[in-house]
Amino acid sequence: MATTRPSLDDPLNAFCRDTDAYLEGAEAGPLAGTTFAAKDIFDVAGHVCGAGNPDWKRTHSPAAETAWAVSVLVDAGATLVGKTHTDELTRGIYGTNAHYGTPINPRAPGRVPGGSSSGSAAAVAGGLVDFALGSDTGGSVRIPASFCGLYGIRPTHGRISMQGVMMGSPSYDTVGFFADDAELFARVGQVLLQTEIPALRPAQLVVVDDAFALAEHGVDAALRPQVERVGSLVHKVRSVRLAEDGLEAWTEQQVVQSGRETLAAARDWIDEVNPRFSFEVAMRYAAAEAFTEADEEAARGERERIRTRVGQLLSAGTVLCLPTATSPAPPVERTVQQRLDLRQRTLALTCIAGSTGCPQVSLPLAEVDGLPVGLSLLAARGGDEMLIGFAREIAAVL
Amino acid sequence: MATTRPSLDDPLNAFCRDTDAYLEGAEAGPLAGTTFAAKDIFDVAGHVCGAGNPDWKRTHSPAAETAWAVSVLVDAGATLVGKTHTDELTRGIYGTNAHYGTPINPRAPGRVPGGSSSGSAAAVAGGLVDFALGSDTGGSVRIPASFCGLYGIRPTHGRISMQGVMMGSPSYDTVGFFADDAELFARVGQVLLQTEIPALRPAQLVVVDDAFALAEHGVDAALRPQVERVGSLVHKVRSVRLAEDGLEAWTEQQVVQSGRETLAAARDWIDEVNPRFSFEVAMRYAAAEAFTEADEEAARGERERIRTRVGQLLSAGTVLCLPTATSPAPPVERTVQQRLDLRQRTLALTCIAGSTGCPQVSLPLAEVDGLPVGLSLLAARGGDEMLIGFAREIAAVL
Repeated sequence: MATTRPSLDDPLNAFCRDTDAYLEGAEAGPLAGTTFAAKDIFDVAGHVCGAGNPDWKRTHSPAAETAWAVSVLVDAGATLVGKTHTDELTRGIYGTNAHYGTPINPRAPGRVPGGSSSGSAAAVAGGLVDFALGSDTGGSVRIPASFCGLYGIRPTHGRISMQGVMMGSPSYDTVGFFADDAELFARVGQVLLQTEIPALRPAQLVVVDDAFALAEHGVDAALRPQVERVGSLVHKVRSVRLAEDGLEAWTEQQVVQSGRETLAAARDWIDEVNPRFSFEVAMRYAAAEAFTEADEEAARGERERIRTRVGQLLSAGTVLCLPTATSPAPPVERTVQQRLDLRQRTLALTCIAGSTGCPQVSLPLAEVDGLPVGLSLLAARGGDEMLIGFAREIAAVL
Repeated sequence: MATTRPSLDDPLNAFCRDTDAYLEGAEAGPLAGTTFAAKDIFDVAGHVCGAGNPDWKRTHSPAAETAWAVSVLVDAGATLVGKTHTDELTRGIYGTNAHYGTPINPRAPGRVPGGSSSGSAAAVAGGLVDFALGSDTGGSVRIPASFCGLYGIRPTHGRISMQGVMMGSPSYDTVGFFADDAELFARVGQVLLQTEIPALRPAQLVVVDDAFALAEHGVDAALRPQVERVGSLVHKVRSVRLAEDGLEAWTEQQVVQSGRETLAAARDWIDEVNPRFSFEVAMRYAAAEAFTEADEEAARGERERIRTRVGQLLSAGTVLCLPTATSPAPPVERTVQQRLDLRQRTLALTCIAGSTGCPQVSLPLAEVDGLPVGLSLLAARGGDEMLIGFAREIAAVL
């Protein structure tokens, strides 16, 4: 495989400038002739992962092996053209990065691309690559997919190997991906899930009313007609209220458990290196120090209750339907507090799949004032290929 | 006044490279012919203060006026040759800076210079300037004076104008200074205090036993003979235990109150800019968010009790005697947790003057294994010139 990258035209600041990771795809295969990018937490042999933080990059060594997900894509014919920017250590859903700048969202000028898989989403939305790898712990594929108007998936937890990918929060981390059209999205899914993508429609669509209630009015109004059209493709449509005490109450267990896991993964490095973080990222590590073992125990119990509740609804052939995000991409210029507020609301939507390990696909089906907003479909664990196949079907029919 | 700086030889990384602030001293005056440096939180007209953080520098404008303390020194004949490095936003007692590097301590190779007035202390200890301005909130002049083997003073709170100096914690912040010999130290004091420095000896020396008990064994052993020699110059020597429940219990009120003040001073800027901090600094701002109004009220009460207790001892002509720091300068390579542990112990010594507003002078009277350690004298509020005069007397006699 060639490893010298041709010069890269990147008007979006999507790609890391300080690495020239490049792997030419195999000549034949289901992805032959396509190009892709990988978030800078995926190992490429001989290159150091930066993970969005220069002190991380400075204190780590080149990878010995290439990540499994990258390798299978290259073997399937796709050419890796570069590594993409991420929020620091994947901590963020906006795509801002205080060290490397914020990638441009080509479909929402002046707005963030979403994160943390920011550069991957920007590169696909801007046509710099055909598809891209990201990761999703608390929304890091789904949110940029929604903000940039792309297909994006958070797969079933554990379904796609994380081998060679930086782990932050093991019980939440997943490898996901973006594409701009449903057909290629399905072909990439076929390679990464290592299975055929069936032409199946779910039997039942369950509209999550309390999720729609959290969305801004314009988002709700823009998505409702699409929900009707998607509903017209299935046997039965009904709606539920998922959380008795509000979905926002579901977020706390994830904040605690994922916060504890993420701190545990980074603590020794932070202690030794005293790295530079943007304040927003540092404060999240600092806040996690306050969570106790007992808090985590309680969080585990709450997570189990959420899994049971969602599991009750997700019989085979059932798909939940919800807005991917509560708003279109917000402006780049925002205060820390404004971002925290929106993050809290957003997490109330993304924590459903995150806490249950269920797969979720975001479909670029609507716009609000010209800004993309995604509609999400969520299935029982293992329903990845059904969701991807249904997304392809929806794109073909609607 | 000339404002173009001659080229500056700085092998210690004491000076800020990204400013050429320079003010030639008046031809006549008590400091004519001397050179000095100012910590990069002192305004010099036309120059931006960086305060040890590149995002602070990037988001602030050049000063319209020069700080009062700088102006009076220049008017007294001293030439300002540059601005010096500080711990980020003056938050630290080690002198480390994740953005600009740690100034070299010329008297303790491989060890930190102490901070936050790190560059000022290093520049004086290395002979790059004759004296230097710093600031002291929680020990930021006293600690580097001890670590670098210099005379250094934290004056009575409010005694030297803070006009044109970045404020962090108004009820603790002071302007202080360093010199390598007691005679020049007194001449600078005369200018900044705007009074003669008398040739007075205090009547009584009170040795603070519980402060010595906090020092490492080697520090205690090195300082005790010097305490005896200083004691031989006064009428009466006695010792006390200052804090019934240990000096370490005195630190909490300062952590709370100074933390709240410092956060209040920086909060809007942090919220708007989301600045990059080293984790150690960011976590202190984040931790201060947890302190409530009620915590601060309790801290104020405790501070009042400490003032009363120390005030009882400090009749006119009485000086408290204590180690400036618990150890010599620690090695540069330390984990965040190791620095936190030492900071906590150090604050138990520095909080006595900090919380009471009393002046404290550190004298470079001893060494441990070739590393400088300072002996401190602390007087009632307003006793600055007596302390400085006594330091000059001690240097002349011993």
